[in-house]
Amino acid sequence: MDDDVSVDFGEDGLVPAVAQDAESGEVLMLAYVSPEALECTRETGRAHYYSRSRDELWEKGATSGHVQEIEEVRVDCDADTLLYLVAQEGGACHTGHRSCFYRTIEGENVGEEVYDPDDVYGDE
Amino acid sequence: MDDDVSVDFGEDGLVPAVAQDAESGEVLMLAYVSPEALECTRETGRAHYYSRSRDELWEKGATSGHVQEIEEVRVDCDADTLLYLVAQEGGACHTGHRSCFYRTIEGENVGEEVYDPDDVYGDE
Repeated sequence: MDDDVSVDFGEDGLVPAVAQDAESGEVLMLAYVSPEALECTRETGRAHYYSRSRDELWEKGATSGHVQEIEEVRVDCDADTLLYLVAQEGGACHTGHRSCFYRTIEGENVGEEVYDPDDVYGDE
Repeated sequence: MDDDVSVDFGEDGLVPAVAQDAESGEVLMLAYVSPEALECTRETGRAHYYSRSRDELWEKGATSGHVQEIEEVRVDCDADTLLYLVAQEGGACHTGHRSCFYRTIEGENVGEEVYDPDDVYGDE
């Protein structure tokens, strides 16, 4: 794959990745990606990210079952941001919403709730 | 506006903002936003960002005319990422493409060219 775009992972070794529903166009979430996470994403066809708080590689949906099947990975003009076009199983957000962007900045809830997080993550 | 979501600007005082075409759903670009940039965005109804390389507040389209009229600002679950829903004048990308995400990671150009950058930014 000689013509692959060379991603600029910068000083901290991470780039932001936007996950977008490939069918509806809904922006689902933003998370960070390391070189290893990108490699896993491309090899498995399922979205992987790097958790800055837990400091580890992370497969989206590994716990919840809400995986993201990759349809395409795009790179922006500066090659320092990724766009994952995905088929989202269930909801992207741990709050039970389809998208993490379920609130306006005025605090209005405009998102769709698609599952009960207590059923997925437990309620303790 | 007491119920506004309190954005977590973190250690560096910036959050990533995804700009999405409010009508087509196309993801146009990602850039960073300071508290001042967010304030200008909300006050003027046009997208403002903070340039990390130039270290300054920046109104999208101030030079090119390719402004972004804000339809809605959304905040994600962790309140550390913004989504600007915009009406994009011309193209979001300095390369002449409608979206900055005009390439797949395999290097294929899948984007729409909407203007000649030489006409907008000069060719020197």
